[in-house]
Amino acid sequence: MRLGTVRREGGGTQAFRQNGGTTTYFDVPDAGALLERSDWSSLSGKQGPEPLPEELAPPITRPGKFVCAGLNYFDHAREVGKNAPAYPTLFAKTTNTLLGARDDIQLPEREQSTRVDWEAELVIVIGMTVRNAAADAAAKAILGYTAMNDVSVRDWQKRTEEWFQGKNFDATSPVGPFIVTADEIDPAEGLSVQCLVNGSLMQSGRTDDMIFSCRELVAYISQFMTLEPGDLIATGTPAGVGAGRTPQEFLKPGDELITRIEGVGELRNFCR
Amino acid sequence: MRLGTVRREGGGTQAFRQNGGTTTYFDVPDAGALLERSDWSSLSGKQGPEPLPEELAPPITRPGKFVCAGLNYFDHAREVGKNAPAYPTLFAKTTNTLLGARDDIQLPEREQSTRVDWEAELVIVIGMTVRNAAADAAAKAILGYTAMNDVSVRDWQKRTEEWFQGKNFDATSPVGPFIVTADEIDPAEGLSVQCLVNGSLMQSGRTDDMIFSCRELVAYISQFMTLEPGDLIATGTPAGVGAGRTPQEFLKPGDELITRIEGVGELRNFCR
Repeated sequence: MRLGTVRREGGGTQAFRQNGGTTTYFDVPDAGALLERSDWSSLSGKQGPEPLPEELAPPITRPGKFVCAGLNYFDHAREVGKNAPAYPTLFAKTTNTLLGARDDIQLPEREQSTRVDWEAELVIVIGMTVRNAAADAAAKAILGYTAMNDVSVRDWQKRTEEWFQGKNFDATSPVGPFIVTADEIDPAEGLSVQCLVNGSLMQSGRTDDMIFSCRELVAYISQFMTLEPGDLIATGTPAGVGAGRTPQEFLKPGDELITRIEGVGELRNFCR
Repeated sequence: MRLGTVRREGGGTQAFRQNGGTTTYFDVPDAGALLERSDWSSLSGKQGPEPLPEELAPPITRPGKFVCAGLNYFDHAREVGKNAPAYPTLFAKTTNTLLGARDDIQLPEREQSTRVDWEAELVIVIGMTVRNAAADAAAKAILGYTAMNDVSVRDWQKRTEEWFQGKNFDATSPVGPFIVTADEIDPAEGLSVQCLVNGSLMQSGRTDDMIFSCRELVAYISQFMTLEPGDLIATGTPAGVGAGRTPQEFLKPGDELITRIEGVGELRNFCR
C-alpha cells in the first residue's frame, strides 16, 4: 500500500491511499493526519485518478519529530574517515526544510555557501506509539518507508560542533514520492539507494550496508523518546557524497538531483 | 503582558492572556495557537481567575521549531574549556521533552544514566515571520521571553558528535511559567538567570553575559530558516552546571530544581 499527500489548487493539501490500482483521497491535510486514525487502512474516501508527480507534497508535511541518523553506512563512514560508531549519531530536521518529490531545491545565496551536497536516504515512517521498544516491537512500529535527499550545506554543518544549521536550510530536503508500507519492502534485504546529479551516478549503496538497521534505530531512539505515528527517522546515506569525492563536487543552480530507492520510488528535483 | 497555557480537567489545554490584573481565557489549545491570530493582543475572551502554577502547561505545547543555542555564555564556555565561538552552536529540541512550570522531571532509569544535569535558560518566543532579518527586524520579531531548564543527560549527549540524544529525553524540559512580552523586559540589560537544586544556588548568571545576544541569535538563525510565530529559541546557559563542578554533581530522584529568570518568573520541578 502507498500513502501520500497531494497539493490542491487553491493551496490546500490532501492525503491519499493507493491499493492495487485504486487511489482514494481523504479530507485530511496529509498522510500524517490519516495515520492518526486507527482505521486508516480501511477508511472510505473518494476514489480519483492517480496523482501526478508534480502534485506531490511531502507525504507528512509537518512531522511531530524528524530524527536523522548520520554516519550510518559502513562505506560512508570510511569515506569521511570515521570508524563505525558504537551508538547512532542523531540530529533533527525541521519542517521548513521539506519539499515534495518534484519541487525545486532552494540553494543558499552564493555568498552564503557554494558547498551544498547530496545525501540520498531511506526514511522510516512510524505507525505506532512506542517507548523502550525491543527489536520485535520496534519492527512492528515501522509503518513503512519513504525516500529523502538530506541536502546539506557542508560549511555551515562544520561551523560548530553541531550539524543542525547545515541540515536545516529552508526548502532543501525533498521527501517522498509517497510512503510504501513495510509489508511490501524490507531494507534488511538490501534495497538499492542511488543518487544521480545531471544523470551521473554519484551514490549507489544498499540498505543492508547500514551500521544500525531500521529496527535497531527505532529501538535505540525509543530508549529516550516516545515515538508516535507520523514521526520520521532518516537512516543515513551511503558513500559518494560530493564532499567525499576527489576533487570535491557540489550542487549548483540548474543541476538535476535524482534520488532513487528500490521499491520506494524516485525524487527528481532541480536546484535553483 | 503575559501569555500562557493552562491544563483543563478532562485533558484539554487553553490559552490565556494577562494584562494588568485581568486574566482572559481563549478557546484555543495553547499560546502558540493564540499567536497565529494577528489580533491576539486585543482579542476578546472570557475573564477568569489567575491560573494556579500547578495548572500551567508549557506556554507553547507544540512549537513548530525549538532551536537551542549551546555555549552562549562567556562564563559557561570558560567552565567547559572552550573559547568563545565564531558562530552560534545550534541544536533542536522536540516536543516530547516539554513540561509545565510545576511538572515532575522524569529522570532516565538508573541503568540508562545517572549523569543528569541542569541548564537554566532564557527562551526567545518569535512573534513574526522573518527570514534574513537584519538586527532591527530581528528585534521586532521577538514577541517575548520565557524560561526553561534544558535538563541534559550528559553521557548520552557525549556518546556521539551530536548532542541531540542527550537533550531530548521524554519529559525533561520544564518551560514557562508563561511568556512575558518584550516591551516589559530586555535581556541586553542583564537579567539574572538562576538555578537552585534543593535550595542551593548552582547557577547565577546575567543575560548580558551572552556571547550572541537575543537579536543576534534571531538574525543568525533567520539566515538559513524562516522563523514563524510561536517558534522558540533557547539562548544557552550560564556557568554552574553540574558537570562543570568539582566534584561533579547530578540530579537524583526527589531533588527539587528551581529555575528563575528575573522579570520572567520561576519554574519549580521535582525529579522522579
